[in-house]
Amino acid sequence: QNLQHICKKSTFGLSKLTNSLSSGKPDTLPIIEDFSRRHIGPNAAEVEEMLKVLGVESLDELTRKTVPEDILDERPLKVSAPMSELELARRVNKIAAKNKVFRNYIGMGYYDSKVPPVIVRNILENPGWYTSYTPYQAEIAQGRMESLINFQTMVTDMTGLPIANASLLDEATAAAEAMALCYRNMKKKQVTPTFFVDQAVFPQSLGVILTRASFLGVKVVVGDYKSFDYNTPGLCGVLFQYPNSDGKVIDYTEYIKAAQANKALAACATDLLALTMLKPPGEYGFDVAFGSAQRFGVPLGYGGPHAAFFSVKKSLQRSIPGRIIGVTKDADNGLAYRLTLQTREQHIKRNKATSNICTAQALLANMAAMYAVYHGAEGLYSIAEKVHHSTCIVAEGARRAGHHIDEGAFFDTLKIKIRNDQAYQDALINAEIRHINIRKYDEPNTIGISLDETVTSEDLDDLLFVLGAPSVSAENGDNWANLWQQLKPKDGGILRSKFERTSDFLTHPTFNNYRSEHQLTRYIRYLEKKDVSLVHSMIPLGSCTMKLNATSELTPISKPEFANIHPFAPAYQTQGFFQLIKELHDDLCEVTGYDAVSFQPNSGAQGEYAGLLAIRAYQHDIGQGHRNICLVPVSAHGTNPASAQMAGLSVVVVKTLPNGEIDMKDIIEKCEKYKDNLSCIMITYPSTYGVFEPAVRELCETIHSYGGQVYLDGANMNAMVGLCKPGKFGADVSHLNLHKTFCIPHGGGGPGVGPIGVKSHLAPFLPGHEVLPPIETTQPGARPFGQVSAAPYGSALILPISWAYLKLMGPTALRSATEVAILNANYMAKRLEKHYPIMFRNENGFCAHEFILDTRSFPGANVGVMDIAKRLQDYGFHGPTTSWPVVNTLMVEPTESEDKAELDRYCDALISIRQEIQDIQDGKADPVNNVLKNAPHTMESITADTWDRPYSRKQAAYPLSWLTTSKKIWPGSARVDDAYGDQNVFCTCPPLEAYSISDLENPEVLQ
Amino acid sequence: QNLQHICKKSTFGLSKLTNSLSSGKPDTLPIIEDFSRRHIGPNAAEVEEMLKVLGVESLDELTRKTVPEDILDERPLKVSAPMSELELARRVNKIAAKNKVFRNYIGMGYYDSKVPPVIVRNILENPGWYTSYTPYQAEIAQGRMESLINFQTMVTDMTGLPIANASLLDEATAAAEAMALCYRNMKKKQVTPTFFVDQAVFPQSLGVILTRASFLGVKVVVGDYKSFDYNTPGLCGVLFQYPNSDGKVIDYTEYIKAAQANKALAACATDLLALTMLKPPGEYGFDVAFGSAQRFGVPLGYGGPHAAFFSVKKSLQRSIPGRIIGVTKDADNGLAYRLTLQTREQHIKRNKATSNICTAQALLANMAAMYAVYHGAEGLYSIAEKVHHSTCIVAEGARRAGHHIDEGAFFDTLKIKIRNDQAYQDALINAEIRHINIRKYDEPNTIGISLDETVTSEDLDDLLFVLGAPSVSAENGDNWANLWQQLKPKDGGILRSKFERTSDFLTHPTFNNYRSEHQLTRYIRYLEKKDVSLVHSMIPLGSCTMKLNATSELTPISKPEFANIHPFAPAYQTQGFFQLIKELHDDLCEVTGYDAVSFQPNSGAQGEYAGLLAIRAYQHDIGQGHRNICLVPVSAHGTNPASAQMAGLSVVVVKTLPNGEIDMKDIIEKCEKYKDNLSCIMITYPSTYGVFEPAVRELCETIHSYGGQVYLDGANMNAMVGLCKPGKFGADVSHLNLHKTFCIPHGGGGPGVGPIGVKSHLAPFLPGHEVLPPIETTQPGARPFGQVSAAPYGSALILPISWAYLKLMGPTALRSATEVAILNANYMAKRLEKHYPIMFRNENGFCAHEFILDTRSFPGANVGVMDIAKRLQDYGFHGPTTSWPVVNTLMVEPTESEDKAELDRYCDALISIRQEIQDIQDGKADPVNNVLKNAPHTMESITADTWDRPYSRKQAAYPLSWLTTSKKIWPGSARVDDAYGDQNVFCTCPPLEAYSISDLENPEVLQ
Repeated sequence: QNLQHICKKSTFGLSKLTNSLSSGKPDTLPIIEDFSRRHIGPNAAEVEEMLKVLGVESLDELTRKTVPEDILDERPLKVSAPMSELELARRVNKIAAKNKVFRNYIGMGYYDSKVPPVIVRNILENPGWYTSYTPYQAEIAQGRMESLINFQTMVTDMTGLPIANASLLDEATAAAEAMALCYRNMKKKQVTPTFFVDQAVFPQSLGVILTRASFLGVKVVVGDYKSFDYNTPGLCGVLFQYPNSDGKVIDYTEYIKAAQANKALAACATDLLALTMLKPPGEYGFDVAFGSAQRFGVPLGYGGPHAAFFSVKKSLQRSIPGRIIGVTKDADNGLAYRLTLQTREQHIKRNKATSNICTAQALLANMAAMYAVYHGAEGLYSIAEKVHHSTCIVAEGARRAGHHIDEGAFFDTLKIKIRNDQAYQDALINAEIRHINIRKYDEPNTIGISLDETVTSEDLDDLLFVLGAPSVSAENGDNWANLWQQLKPKDGGILRSKFERTSDFLTHPTFNNYRSEHQLTRYIRYLEKKDVSLVHSMIPLGSCTMKLNATSELTPISKPEFANIHPFAPAYQTQGFFQLIKELHDDLCEVTGYDAVSFQPNSGAQGEYAGLLAIRAYQHDIGQGHRNICLVPVSAHGTNPASAQMAGLSVVVVKTLPNGEIDMKDIIEKCEKYKDNLSCIMITYPSTYGVFEPAVRELCETIHSYGGQVYLDGANMNAMVGLCKPGKFGADVSHLNLHKTFCIPHGGGGPGVGPIGVKSHLAPFLPGHEVLPPIETTQPGARPFGQVSAAPYGSALILPISWAYLKLMGPTALRSATEVAILNANYMAKRLEKHYPIMFRNENGFCAHEFILDTRSFPGANVGVMDIAKRLQDYGFHGPTTSWPVVNTLMVEPTESEDKAELDRYCDALISIRQEIQDIQDGKADPVNNVLKNAPHTMESITADTWDRPYSRKQAAYPLSWLTTSKKIWPGSARVDDAYGDQNVFCTCPPLEAYSISDLENPEVLQ
Repeated sequence: QNLQHICKKSTFGLSKLTNSLSSGKPDTLPIIEDFSRRHIGPNAAEVEEMLKVLGVESLDELTRKTVPEDILDERPLKVSAPMSELELARRVNKIAAKNKVFRNYIGMGYYDSKVPPVIVRNILENPGWYTSYTPYQAEIAQGRMESLINFQTMVTDMTGLPIANASLLDEATAAAEAMALCYRNMKKKQVTPTFFVDQAVFPQSLGVILTRASFLGVKVVVGDYKSFDYNTPGLCGVLFQYPNSDGKVIDYTEYIKAAQANKALAACATDLLALTMLKPPGEYGFDVAFGSAQRFGVPLGYGGPHAAFFSVKKSLQRSIPGRIIGVTKDADNGLAYRLTLQTREQHIKRNKATSNICTAQALLANMAAMYAVYHGAEGLYSIAEKVHHSTCIVAEGARRAGHHIDEGAFFDTLKIKIRNDQAYQDALINAEIRHINIRKYDEPNTIGISLDETVTSEDLDDLLFVLGAPSVSAENGDNWANLWQQLKPKDGGILRSKFERTSDFLTHPTFNNYRSEHQLTRYIRYLEKKDVSLVHSMIPLGSCTMKLNATSELTPISKPEFANIHPFAPAYQTQGFFQLIKELHDDLCEVTGYDAVSFQPNSGAQGEYAGLLAIRAYQHDIGQGHRNICLVPVSAHGTNPASAQMAGLSVVVVKTLPNGEIDMKDIIEKCEKYKDNLSCIMITYPSTYGVFEPAVRELCETIHSYGGQVYLDGANMNAMVGLCKPGKFGADVSHLNLHKTFCIPHGGGGPGVGPIGVKSHLAPFLPGHEVLPPIETTQPGARPFGQVSAAPYGSALILPISWAYLKLMGPTALRSATEVAILNANYMAKRLEKHYPIMFRNENGFCAHEFILDTRSFPGANVGVMDIAKRLQDYGFHGPTTSWPVVNTLMVEPTESEDKAELDRYCDALISIRQEIQDIQDGKADPVNNVLKNAPHTMESITADTWDRPYSRKQAAYPLSWLTTSKKIWPGSARVDDAYGDQNVFCTCPPLEAYSISDLENPEVLQ
């Protein structure tokens, strides 16, 4: 009774409820650690209170009034019972122990790296960095954008090309983007567009290019760069790798010229570390350069996530895919950063976009940029020196042991033909004994060895042992120590060769001022302080599900047994990953109702694309390959039409009804019209308007009846987990945004992960891999459509996050989370409905997990949705999604992780802003010079000696009573000028002396 | 040549130099990762520049002009060559693997705990928390003081006593402090003071009490609480444990009354978790309660660091040892926190202080407080319920298996007499097989089992297996699940017993508002944001050596192989710790010139005390036990005289000369005067005035010639590493502040670690341990003087930090670090000497690693040193040490980790402040209403609508050009009112509604 005495006053109810629901029989010990009450924000009392506001009795009633009866699935999810955080940690240790960490000399675009601990602790393991959102609200994202512009500067410096983006998903997709850019750049497309790829490009890059090209209608010719006919009609581009996949450093100058003479573009796959020693692609005349930034301080992680880089000549700056950070001015004429040239992207251009890229790899790009900041030019050069030196030693040892290496310069990679069969077998066995992974070529007796910065003298000795070569120990009298300075170019040496780099790089002060750990720590923390993330307040971005990213979910990725595995490591070394991926696979199948999942797509958009290709491959397989029409509702995510276009589908837009629902009549009309060629429909469920449309089952049946397939965008899966399953109510395929519903943090704009779930008829067509086929494609009957990402399992390193979330929550809490997500949204909508029209709710008056505030018209006040979003910053909040899916509206998605007090504060802010708008409408506030138009207010302006605004400093900075100085969050800049930034593209670090845009000595003004 | 081309412009010189010095022969591979350039702030070019300013050619010349020739030691340190951070990590893994992590049911004050990952990541692994300093500058320490007042509130709530401090070093020293408090409280001391300790107190607590009492002249009687004669004359106090060491819960009411009737105090050793179920000590009438807060979310760590708690009745609030956070008002009449009742402490009261405690365990107290905040009353009760329930099951199982357990209530611990020899042997063997540690009593066939929150049903089954009892699995039909609610008090149950707690606890909103991970993360980050730490700017505290705490040094402590080891685990499970401790031991001997080191003292002051006891034990051993005079220079650290007093020594103060040097004449006079009884001298070197005194060798020889020993305070070791060795120039013993020179972070006021190094003649007398003797005391000839800390190796968990520092740096860089520390100090002194008098430098004009700015007199301006320190906050800086060792001066110690730009900014700030003072002196600024007197300026005042100061907002907040808004650091409060706080002691969480001190409904006003 004493327990009850205490608990009566407590906030313990919800978890008690959860427990009693989840455990069938009483356990010997009471379950006392319930992770779900850490994940789910509101406690039982708050849930009661909010239910009361909504006029419903229970979460169950709310669910029944929100989710259509014909799709509601009452059965408890068949996932394992919830674990405590400690149990999870122990389980992770056991699984991790099944991975074997070998030394990796496989190379092929993946290298061991010394990740500086200061960067691990202050970026990778710091929620102030990893929980932030994509920097769409520029004023509260200045810190990470400064870091991303460091990334771009690093890329332009290293590649010698002036325009870089802030990261693509991986090197192989960057290769495909390069091909697509060449294709887009082609003026006349009468002739079959042709893209030449040198045969010594990484096989996984070739795999993604071939897949992408086949659906774009581009012919890919793979061959020897020396023998290709550069006058081939329709040639749109060529791709060489430098150094190439076999490690050779080649001067492609004449072939670049030949291709360019034929109006084709020349693209270069390259390596950042090599470019510290090697003449950069830009100096050879390449139009495009790209590659992986992984070896700049990002762990291998069994293939990802890593940031790819991409840079182009200035003339191509409007064609470059992905996100670019640019410099612009703010309302106070200061310098500020923002995403520039956004109009190229899919949310504007839809199927005409440069690509379907939405997620970048921001967190990893930031790590790579900081690695360069910390080492600087001289440090990176030293690392390259050591790597090259080591490679020279191995080459010399191999030759002395009688093996063959082709003549010519190399940087870090050797292709070695072992002298005979016996020596080859010995080498393989000895490598295994010494826990060494090397590359095995298909060619007889041929191996590849790639070195990296982690190599030690002992490692070199081991490698020489494997090769049967003499030791490097000083005793044998060889002057190994100076070998790299002596080795002739024909024997591989770079020094004194024509390849040696002579141009400077990383000369900007940012790359020279932070060499000590104190300096770098303070720089990282200084940048962090400028930004808003989930450690400050809720970020209720509609469609983006910014829920809790729990520490327990994230800790596994720091473990070397996950972080230090090469993606092409043999299967017996990766059993831990296999187990974890299998468990996650099965759990996701159970949650979604699908029969199989592929983890290869490393972003949501990539998942869409992969899902559509699976449909196309299936239809081709059943003799329906001609079907090429994709229906897309007008309200769809911009990535949908962009992905459809990439899959070679023609997009036909279908209408929505005034209440936001899909217009079934229009669907049937379009189905009739295109019945012979209907490939599929892409829908989002609940709809992008935030409503569970009642007719979804009917819609799916209709499409099927016309021979079409249903692609269901999983962006809103957080409204469905535990309540309904797309695979059970008619969808054929979905991608899942693990970085939304399944707790992978947004990382300030990536990583994302977008596995696809499919019904059994599509399962044989899931993506394969050129180098190491994923397990699911090794089943009998598998006919993979091709390859979409560089690594077999995409961004495998972060899969433990989603796995952990499912294990920690268990069946009941997963459902509770969904119900509370719906509750939170409806509660906010209810509180706000008297102040802003709520656009779409179902016939019972309920939205799903998000809702849209109509902010399109405030008669008498010239206030737009952007003014409200910016004003929210003054209240310490990140704005909701703006102008999507309806222009000039706000879409709010609170998620289940926010408690009632936080929801109330956000509502208070929006209500207070509504009053501020009313004051303008009523003539009480100036129509131009008001708190909304001048938002956000910087610390600089509020603390200035002069204040000439018609409202007070307090009204500007502390409009609500709970907004005290200690809670105040200041924006990093005044309102950014978007138009100016797009007109004056400047996307590398501005000089330190520059305080305003006009200080930039050579602004790269367009046109 | 290209490399040179790049490096010419680079900052790479210093490390190149370091490398070439450190490696004898050229390595096969170039050393490219040099940790020292991450640790040492200035690069080679900056070093050159600073040397030029000082007018010396080289660091070597500076050293020769700073360090006396007769102590300078030219030989390179014999420590291992520097490791890279990656090599270190690999080495740590290998050593960690030698520790075996068993499940620990040993108890005895140490319990496994589920440390919430959100607290690990955001406090323990967050430099924003762990690099901050002791909260002496209250205005920029409000965040962690709020957390510490949560700790105090938790302790007062749990113990039922109204006054608590914010942590002591461990439970055993807290026990000794309780004894000392009772002794101090004794009115008449004619009769031999006597302190009674019940025999069922933890043996390690008894060990520390006995040692402490013997030197204080207190007689300790150990016996059965039931049979002791409470009328014993001279009885000053009694100590009972509740629940006691054997797990029994006993009602001591009548014995407390009996003791109190004899004017003695009654102290209670207790357990926070047990007190959620048990009636608290305050309700029984105890005067004092204390214990360890370890099991509240702090890892075992092989014995520490953990926070001990200590609470007293109100009448004893001025006698309570240690630091207390109190509430006061600030200059704007807001509530603010500060260290209260500081006048009790050693830096004021010196040998009259309540204790020598200087370091608390702030970081660990904060973790424990957050654990309580996160769980709240109901969560803690649930944990206790589970622990008690598990214990009931084990007890029932043991009884069913025929073993004997005494009648009476228990909470989590059982003393079990196994039924016969064979069953006992089986139990021991089975425990080992199942990787279980239990307590082994000296009594025949007797074991102890203590349970904790990590126990699972499987663990219980294993324990029952060990006991030969039936399994708890549901199949055998026993209703184990409800056992704890049924067990009668005589069989051990607490429910429905007279011990059951009925009073509330943790009712304050702080303990009820942060149940979700988002809520707690934001609360922790909100507090962090208020405080200044090393992640913001340099903290040049004289004598405190706030150098870099590198991430690589700190990562080992997160590893379970170090964190989850019980201090009394058998030696075969702790081989990793032994290796690491041995290596650190040897390195510290090499660095200091001593022959042996004891790691038991867990703070610097504890080390002083231990070192003095070693001297006393040695002198006793050679028949000189009567020597009891300790010479202490007037400039000594306050802990010196306090420690001397605790060691039973009489302090005789020796003078210093006007130039700051010890007055050798006075020394000789005092030696002569006390030659028969001279025990030792305590000196600091370089002196607390920041100078290498030339006569140190002579001084040591003089003391020795009078039969005395030299205690050299190691606080300033950072000026000596690699340059000179105390053990070689005449000192007999020193403590080393590993949290100063050897990189353990200050943690916002602890942990500290204070091992002592001794010459061989003192080595036999190093501290021992009642339970598990440290290795050094198991050598032949060892005659330990007693015990000073709870655990054999003190705060063993953080020893890897110092070990790692030494391994990363290697011999050359350790010396370079010292030289740069001296360079940095001299550079700052040089830049500042035109603006402030520099008080003490040697005859060449050089200080050591720190220097004193004379701020005692600014004619015409009523400006004191505190005004300058507070004004520095407005410049974004933590003030230097104030008023120590010279009243009204500033002592600046920049350390080697700060680069020149940061030193310059700090100098700029001090110079600018000097001009601000000049403006007052010149009548240009108001004598009262000026930027200094009003400092620090809060964001609230600068952003207020009204501004009526005679200077501008800009002058107040941004007095220098580089101090822009994005760099601005705001204080958490206006200047705190110290006098008010000392007069109105309020040391628990104020009600949330209280905005000013007058809002506190029941201010606990003194007198």
